[in-house]
Amino acid sequence: MNGAEALIATLIDADVNVCFANPGTSEMQLVAAIDKLDGMRAILCLFEGVVTGAADGYGRMADKPAATLLHLGPGLANGLANLHNAKRAHSPIVNIVGDHATYHLNYDAPLTSDVAGVARPMSDWVGASASADALAAEGSAAVAAALDYPGRIATLIAPANHAWEETKSRAKPVSRKPAPRAAASAVRAAEQALKKGDAALFLGGRALRADALDEAGRIVAATGSRLICETFFARMERGAGRVAPERLPYFAEMATENLKGVRRLIMVGAKPPVAFFAYPGKPGWLAPQDADIVTLAGPREDALGALSALAEELGAPKDHGRAQTPFAPPIGTGKLDAAGIGAVVANLLPANAVVSDEAATAGLALFPMTAGAAPHDWLTLTGGSIGQGLPVGLGAAVACPDRKVVCLQADGGAMYTIQALWTMAREKLDVATVIVNNGSYAILNIEFMRVGAGAAGPKARQLLDLTNPGLDFVSMARGMGVPGRRATTVEEFRDAFAEAIACKGPFLVDAVI
Amino acid sequence: MNGAEALIATLIDADVNVCFANPGTSEMQLVAAIDKLDGMRAILCLFEGVVTGAADGYGRMADKPAATLLHLGPGLANGLANLHNAKRAHSPIVNIVGDHATYHLNYDAPLTSDVAGVARPMSDWVGASASADALAAEGSAAVAAALDYPGRIATLIAPANHAWEETKSRAKPVSRKPAPRAAASAVRAAEQALKKGDAALFLGGRALRADALDEAGRIVAATGSRLICETFFARMERGAGRVAPERLPYFAEMATENLKGVRRLIMVGAKPPVAFFAYPGKPGWLAPQDADIVTLAGPREDALGALSALAEELGAPKDHGRAQTPFAPPIGTGKLDAAGIGAVVANLLPANAVVSDEAATAGLALFPMTAGAAPHDWLTLTGGSIGQGLPVGLGAAVACPDRKVVCLQADGGAMYTIQALWTMAREKLDVATVIVNNGSYAILNIEFMRVGAGAAGPKARQLLDLTNPGLDFVSMARGMGVPGRRATTVEEFRDAFAEAIACKGPFLVDAVI
Repeated sequence: MNGAEALIATLIDADVNVCFANPGTSEMQLVAAIDKLDGMRAILCLFEGVVTGAADGYGRMADKPAATLLHLGPGLANGLANLHNAKRAHSPIVNIVGDHATYHLNYDAPLTSDVAGVARPMSDWVGASASADALAAEGSAAVAAALDYPGRIATLIAPANHAWEETKSRAKPVSRKPAPRAAASAVRAAEQALKKGDAALFLGGRALRADALDEAGRIVAATGSRLICETFFARMERGAGRVAPERLPYFAEMATENLKGVRRLIMVGAKPPVAFFAYPGKPGWLAPQDADIVTLAGPREDALGALSALAEELGAPKDHGRAQTPFAPPIGTGKLDAAGIGAVVANLLPANAVVSDEAATAGLALFPMTAGAAPHDWLTLTGGSIGQGLPVGLGAAVACPDRKVVCLQADGGAMYTIQALWTMAREKLDVATVIVNNGSYAILNIEFMRVGAGAAGPKARQLLDLTNPGLDFVSMARGMGVPGRRATTVEEFRDAFAEAIACKGPFLVDAVI
Repeated sequence: MNGAEALIATLIDADVNVCFANPGTSEMQLVAAIDKLDGMRAILCLFEGVVTGAADGYGRMADKPAATLLHLGPGLANGLANLHNAKRAHSPIVNIVGDHATYHLNYDAPLTSDVAGVARPMSDWVGASASADALAAEGSAAVAAALDYPGRIATLIAPANHAWEETKSRAKPVSRKPAPRAAASAVRAAEQALKKGDAALFLGGRALRADALDEAGRIVAATGSRLICETFFARMERGAGRVAPERLPYFAEMATENLKGVRRLIMVGAKPPVAFFAYPGKPGWLAPQDADIVTLAGPREDALGALSALAEELGAPKDHGRAQTPFAPPIGTGKLDAAGIGAVVANLLPANAVVSDEAATAGLALFPMTAGAAPHDWLTLTGGSIGQGLPVGLGAAVACPDRKVVCLQADGGAMYTIQALWTMAREKLDVATVIVNNGSYAILNIEFMRVGAGAAGPKARQLLDLTNPGLDFVSMARGMGVPGRRATTVEEFRDAFAEAIACKGPFLVDAVI
């Protein structure tokens, strides 16, 4: 057995059985080990941003890590932006990054770089094997780090000679530790804050699963507090029958307005809300200056357990009466816009779907319209680095082969990782992609004004605009083996989206608004 | 004047007048400054790997830096792989990367990251402004760093508040320092080595421009030494009438064979040749163990001056008789292959063209076939990180609007930065792109065997293969506004390539081999 085989066997033993990959020469032994051993599914992605984004989507839906396989420093670098998003989502990921044979590094061959230096900014844990014998143990440590609740980004650097040299070492199995429980004092502090009134629970992370939201609904029924969630969450279980928190608005001035009058803001799986960007003369801290911040459970603590304990402490009723009633806005006619897309999606979304939302400005509008749709999961852009939506949808589809995945994807972000379509085609993943195509980085047209940059002239407008030429996503999808249709009216979009939902496999709708 | 305007004005004063950009909110003031001031052309790219690759191509052809404009840590991260290649090419680039307002960083907003940490592995120089007043001076220092002969990667981090705050500071103008001259002792050492015989000049970097090659030709005429160049060079001026060095083979075992019998290897603008990767039981050092390595000029010294001094010292004839005679292989018929592509390109390549070669295995075959074509420049993948070819071609076309650019691009690498096509369309750049489409990462099929991984099974083959579904680049190009044709025979390729050459603007040929 060589080091590569020992490492891959260790990952399989630790229940890591999907690897999103874009390997190169220095990873060929790892490819050979995946090939030789049973139990690891290998999925080729044609760009590393797809690899890491897919691992993020997989981690969010499977609650366990996928592995990635990346080629040296530059391959890892290509995956960093979506690792940034995954880190912000607290997703579990185990990156395996090849490096030159240790004795080759002093030659400074063309692909040599500081791999650990590339890894560090977007990883929670970075390790490298010191020998072939050490590779499996490092892999085991990487899985343990990735499983640190609710998840971390672990990056293991595997020198080529450690992969090909013989070893007898196998690593000890990895056991998953339970989520740390919130302190009893935190439960009491939250209880007291709620009893004083003018309080809001501020939910994020695992507090947005249906069971935790149910407990939050009980607390609301008992106390009349508000229920608010972070703007960009990793995963929310929502739709008809579930408890729906208010979503904090994206724009800082609207968020500040929204939180006015809140005197006590209780964190559950979230950090206190802050502005996405700074703007001249506007506050970055969004809660009222005099509001108390009380932490019931931090992002790395058991939010469900904490909410449950708090509900019991309050003697809250089991039947909270806060479940979302089913609804869907009526489907209109005529020229397509974000509202038209929202109405169609709300009506046609199948039960148990997974929605990957990187529709940016349009996504914020689509969200409330789908609140009463059939129960589904909603995944958002946690770290603000665009190009996550299609890869996350891809990874979610691998994790959940029996569920329909819907990607709601803005045109600008779609172009970052458009290669995801090819992997959807190859793996025959059940993903309906809706490109919300407004021909611009629409959010930046707003932000340009908000930062006080005045009126945009021709050169600035050109940098924010995606026309001239316009992007034809149906052609691009066809080029990668994914069928699709273009829609410019609500009627066309309804038909196209219905086809995407009916089709078992990838389909793209270029929704021109 | 605000900090952003002071910075952009400083860049323009320093003759940096092209900016490849993919900005976000934190860069809107810089966009506004580019908009307001005359003298900076802004070119939108839809992914940051295109931005940095284009800056590399521009730098190689213009011998001066373009600026890039990148959005925070993740935007920079997306550009790192092509910065790695650019760093290996010694290209001059000035990266401007926005960051949050300094007082916003402590909030750890979603897009916060260690921008300097992301920059460091692929930058030669990293700076950040300490205030609005300091921004222009840091910009001036960045340009000076980028101009360090022959070029460096300089990355300047510009916090948003330094961009929008008022300043009266302007930076002093940047003056370009001449290339450091090689020491007289180095010229004498090279002369003595040549006179002993069994010597080869090993050329890289600026030693591969036509004037330097001409001096090398004189030295060869006077001494009978061999003339060899590095395998992956930034830019070579070649074709009929120019002196053509032998290109060191890519595969280590072939390179070692090629260098057998060389007792004295004289570096001119190059480092000693090493294997691209390590392989079990194969040497990484490619020169014979007992060969003397003599440095006439390092990569950061004036290779032309050194060769010229050496030629004079040797009393070498002006008329060396080593100019390449014009030739082009006959164009065949039938099923297309790399040789078929090479023959057509060699015959149809217009004089003064610029070739961006990331055709991988096929590129190595195309190179000798075009040795006697009309004079042209040839740019290669210097750092081994694929996805450079199309962006470098894009940047070369911006630098050289009167020259035809030809991208010879393998399918695997094309998919990394396919978004480059859109910018070619928007800017109406005169680029003929040939996708060498063999439906696989062909090089990896070879490397799999070479690292001793045995025979590839189904899972391994799937990770090296780009079929199922096949990639249709004509459709993808159409989706981004670039016309194209598919060719599967030599006849079809000849017609399609002739159309690409005749058309003034971007055109893509999907050459299926």
